[in-house]
Parts: sequence; C-alpha cells; structure tokens
Amino acid sequence: MKIYIVGIGLIGGSMGLDIKTIYPEAIIYGVDNNENHLQQALALGVIDEAATLENVSDADFVIVSVPVDVAITVLPEVLDLIGENTIVFEVGSTKAPICEAVSSHPKRRNFIATHPIAGTEFSGPSAAIKGLFQGKTNIICEVERTAFKLQEKALDLFKAIGMRIRYMEPKSHDKHIAYVSHLSHISSFMLGKTVINKEKDEQDIFDMAGSGFESTVRLAKSSPAMWTPIFKQNKVQVIETLEEYISNLTQFKDLLIKEDYNAIFEEMQSVNKIKEILNGMNVTK
Amino acid sequence: MKIYIVGIGLIGGSMGLDIKTIYPEAIIYGVDNNENHLQQALALGVIDEAATLENVSDADFVIVSVPVDVAITVLPEVLDLIGENTIVFEVGSTKAPICEAVSSHPKRRNFIATHPIAGTEFSGPSAAIKGLFQGKTNIICEVERTAFKLQEKALDLFKAIGMRIRYMEPKSHDKHIAYVSHLSHISSFMLGKTVINKEKDEQDIFDMAGSGFESTVRLAKSSPAMWTPIFKQNKVQVIETLEEYISNLTQFKDLLIKEDYNAIFEEMQSVNKIKEILNGMNVTK
Repeated sequence: MKIYIVGIGLIGGSMGLDIKTIYPEAIIYGVDNNENHLQQALALGVIDEAATLENVSDADFVIVSVPVDVAITVLPEVLDLIGENTIVFEVGSTKAPICEAVSSHPKRRNFIATHPIAGTEFSGPSAAIKGLFQGKTNIICEVERTAFKLQEKALDLFKAIGMRIRYMEPKSHDKHIAYVSHLSHISSFMLGKTVINKEKDEQDIFDMAGSGFESTVRLAKSSPAMWTPIFKQNKVQVIETLEEYISNLTQFKDLLIKEDYNAIFEEMQSVNKIKEILNGMNVTK
Repeated sequence: MKIYIVGIGLIGGSMGLDIKTIYPEAIIYGVDNNENHLQQALALGVIDEAATLENVSDADFVIVSVPVDVAITVLPEVLDLIGENTIVFEVGSTKAPICEAVSSHPKRRNFIATHPIAGTEFSGPSAAIKGLFQGKTNIICEVERTAFKLQEKALDLFKAIGMRIRYMEPKSHDKHIAYVSHLSHISSFMLGKTVINKEKDEQDIFDMAGSGFESTVRLAKSSPAMWTPIFKQNKVQVIETLEEYISNLTQFKDLLIKEDYNAIFEEMQSVNKIKEILNGMNVTK
C-alpha cells in the first residue's frame, strides 16, 4: 500500500502513525515544503520516505493535510497527477471552498472531502500522536460525488483508525463548525489577549491563574498559519457567530449593570445543561 | 485536632480529605444546611461527624467554604462562637467584601482571609478529591490583621497540603482574579449559550463538537449558586473585564469584516505567547 501525505503536521502525521500501525506493509511518503518538518517526520517515524508528487500516480491514498488556503491550490495539482485508482482526501476545517475548488475537476470522483474532528492545540510533525482519531467523528461532504469503490476504500481506512462517519452538505458543515470550533478559537484567543494586555500593567496576574483559565485559553496556543485561512474561508459564518457571542456577553454585562442577579442565576442555570450535552458527546465519541 | 468545615462542597470537602490524610488523629466536623450533603459527606468519609456550630469554641480550625454571600453573614457568627485559639479561614473567590464583613469584629485576629486557586467545575461533597491543593497557589489577604501564632498555624496547614503562599491586598486580589478567573467563567457560559441557542434550530450541531469546544465550555458546568454572588460582590471589576473582552472580540470581528488577514494573523501570533505563560504557570504550580 502506497500512502502519500502532503503536509506532515498534527493531522497528517497522526494519520501516518495510525496507518503504519494498522497496515505495517504500507509505505508512507511524506511531501512537505518545510524541509525541517520532513526531517523531523522521518526521525520520528511518522513517514518512511521524503518524496515529491511526481511518482504519485500509483498511490493508493493521498492525504492532503495543509492549511485550507494551500489545499485549494494543491488539491487540483494532486488530482492532475494521480492514477484512476488513487483516492485523495483533504482534512481541513472548511468544506465549501474546498469542494468548490475541485468541483469541475475531471478527477473529482477520485476525491473525498472530509473533516476529522480531532486534534490538539499543537502543530507540526512533533505534534503527531497515535490513536488521535479513535472514537472521533469524521464528517464527509458530497459523498455522492466520489466514485463508489473509492468511497469504500476511504471509509474502510477511516473505520480502521476508529472514526465514526457523519455525512453533511459542505455549507451546513461550514455553518455548524463555525459555532462548535471556529468561535471557540476566537473566544480563546481574545480571552488570552485581554489578560495579557492587563498583565502589562499588573504584574504577577498569571500567578493567580488556575486550571479554569488554562482550559479556556488552551486554544489560543493554536497556529495562526492554520487558522487565518480558516477564518478567511468561513468569514461570513464566523462573523455571524461572533455577533451572537458578543451580544450574549453584552446582555450578561447589562444584567450585571442592572444588578439583576436572578436573571444572571437563570442564565447560568440554563447553560448548565451543557453538562449533559458534553456527556452525550463523550458517550458517542 | 478538631476541625470544623462549614459548607462541605468541592473545596471544604477536599480540605477535609487532605487534613485526614496528613493528620489521621484529626476529627472533622461537618456543618451544612443541606442534610443530603451532610449524609453524602459522612458516607464518603469526607467528614467524621455531622455537627452544628454550638460546640465550635474548642475547635483548632474552622474552614468556612460556602458561597461568598453566605460567608458574609456566617463568618461573624462563627467568630462570635470560637475560642481564642481557634483560627477561622474562608476560601471564596472574592476577598474585599469578606475582609470588610469582619473588619471590625472583636475576633478579627482569629480570622485569615484566603483564596486557594484550586477547584474543578463540579460541586458538592461528591466533587471532593484528595490532593486538590498540591502545588496550587493560596492567596492570603491582610495577613497582618491575623494574630501571629494563628497565622503560623494556618500556614503550616496550607503548606502541609502542598500549597504555595502569595500575599495580596484584598482589592488587588479581586481586580486580578476578575481577569484570570471570573472572566473565563462568563466567556465559557456565554459560549455555551451561543451554541445551545443555535442548536435549537440546527440539529446535531454538538455531534460536530470536539475537544476544543469541550475545553472552552468546561466552566459553563459551574454552579450558579456559587457564581452569582461572586459576580455580585466583584461586579465593578467583572464589568471592566467584560468591556475589555467584548471590545477585543469586536475588534477581531471588524478585522474579519475589513478582510485584514495580516492583522488577524498578527493578533493570534501575539497571543500565542500564552504558551510560555501557561508553561510558566505549570512549572510553578
């Protein structure tokens, strides 16, 4: 089995590690513009060989795991080069622009649009971990546009690494993911900014920070190179979520100003049901 | 050693468990209005006996771990009843109103104002865990207003359960903690609200949520009964942090509207230094 991973970071690298575990005979070729990342990936055993795309024609799988702006230009190039039995998939956090970029490509049926809901706040090959996808959701878009045999091949791989499959339209994916992922990242980045700015004139403020703060700002460690193009491609949806979030925060602030503590209590109590929702997530994931 | 814990929840209960481990001879008396919590605490071995405050006069320690609005009324009552060698401490997330409530009490020198920066999003005796305070910070306010011998007694206990001590003025505590704790809770509650509201008309949205969302909304599981009075007592500071947070979010939204993706990249990159800050926290905590 010949696997090409284009962009060996957290997601691509972790896929490589899982594929090696499940299919020991697989040869994993790494393609990356960043020579250091290639060397790291080889040293860590994330890939077997550094490669270019020129010999991709007899590959079984090509995993494109690059920032979503790069994916839009790389994907058509990859499709141009692959053979008819190669299945190409991409793993980014936006789906409509990606599907659009390959929509009229003659080899569209060799492509499957996916979004594995898995990751950490870290990036690069050194962030790759085994079992990252176990029990996680993989959202597949426009499945009907992928050749049936190649769908099957891809689904077998996703199931082998432990993923549950959900099917969605690209636009719905992008709309929903703005709420449950993109907004969380902005809230975390801006929370970090607010406290960092304050610390400029208030020393030792972080000496008082506990696990609660750590948990809410964890995503502010994320890679700007990865997230800027996501926000760009999903701009309209992200702005909508930000407007709703800001209006909820403003309303909470106004309740404080009005000293309506009953309403504040009820606000928090009604959101407490997130407990059951998160437990539900944990059961299914 | 006789220890009274007034309010046997996450913090009081966890203190009880650690004290039992370090001082096996200690007898832990639990005082709580909630009969179920008392019975739970007995069943879980968090306390040795259910009690009232009437026999508190020969106690070594009285730990007041109740919501901060209750603390303001309970603390003076406790101080009225204790003996001259009893040290009373309170563990809430606001300090200026608490210190003010006992400021002119004749037994003020038997009181030490503390804020252990430790906890989880859970509450009640069942949330109590051993070793919760190991390596965590305990902020002590107005230490000079506590009798020296009793300071020593309290500090020995805090060090025995693994806490590092920081001294602050109550007003500085309340100002700083608004940034690193109170704001995180509101950002989390309002993030949960924003997504829950969206899910009313968008089914299965949580099916797409991953660990990032889980981490940023974790604090939205917190107890409204505990947090409403904290926001009430620290209203001015919390409103200030909310205004700064909302303005940072609005500015980020405006950069998206203006499509200034270089500025968005730089915003995120400058906040990335939170990595080192959090690592620093982990080293010291």
